Amino acid sequence: MKTFAFAVTTAALLSIAAPASAQFAKSEDAIKYRQSALFVMSQHFGRIGAMASGRAPFDAKVAADNADVVASMAKLPWAGFGPGTDKGGDTKAKAEIWSEQGKFKEASDKFVAESVKLAAATKTGNLDAVKTAFTATAGSCKACHDAFRSK
Amino acid sequence: MKTFAFAVTTAALLSIAAPASAQFAKSEDAIKYRQSALFVMSQHFGRIGAMASGRAPFDAKVAADNADVVASMAKLPWAGFGPGTDKGGDTKAKAEIWSEQGKFKEASDKFVAESVKLAAATKTGNLDAVKTAFTATAGSCKACHDAFRSK
Repeated sequence: MKTFAFAVTTAALLSIAAPASAQFAKSEDAIKYRQSALFVMSQHFGRIGAMASGRAPFDAKVAADNADVVASMAKLPWAGFGPGTDKGGDTKAKAEIWSEQGKFKEASDKFVAESVKLAAATKTGNLDAVKTAFTATAGSCKACHDAFRSK
Repeated sequence: MKTFAFAVTTAALLSIAAPASAQFAKSEDAIKYRQSALFVMSQHFGRIGAMASGRAPFDAKVAADNADVVASMAKLPWAGFGPGTDKGGDTKAKAEIWSEQGKFKEASDKFVAESVKLAAATKTGNLDAVKTAFTATAGSCKACHDAFRSK
């Protein structure tokens, strides 16, 4: 019972001291959470991309609505990369996420910042501004995927 | 990037033909989208539930942050229940979603409205107000699941 008591106490302490890293019941949930958040964002982001590339007619309102979803969700996935969530589910996450946490945070912060700029660009109603901001945001996705996601 | 590029291309083609009802490249994406959005919300909603039920200490700021995510995402999943998305993936969606669209919309609208009230309740910092709003919101989840989701 000693080990159990220790585990319970530690879990209790951690949940008080560090709520951010103990938000998920199990690793599988954290992995599913981050993948789900990223997938939802990718769908909305893709609709802006279609307009930015000229494959869909530009509709400033639609672009703004989609960019708002991306910007408001951009901060979410990263909580799902807590300690121990490198295993426990089907994930393409590279070990570098945990061994180079500073660089990973820098990459995710970059995406968050670009998504805010993209949302602002869609509010101008200017397609060129949207194109520029979309390209910068897409670049921040790719940079992070190249460094931290397995093929 | 392959999946992303495919999604963008197909979304672009579909958005020309029918922007509102064909936001997804294929039925599988729509199903994955709605399930992903609902899963992300459920994680945030569950953290408020832990406080409402006394299983976690009440922290008004944490409750408000989580309720804001739920309220801002509450409108998303329903676009994933478009025509033809009853099949094409692993789904528990009942046929009634499409045969009784008015009732389904009423149920999802109810959840959206309750999630807004929940976010407002968390802003008061009053745990009893949060409990009341959480129970009402959870009730709207359950009512919709009971009517429109297979066990």
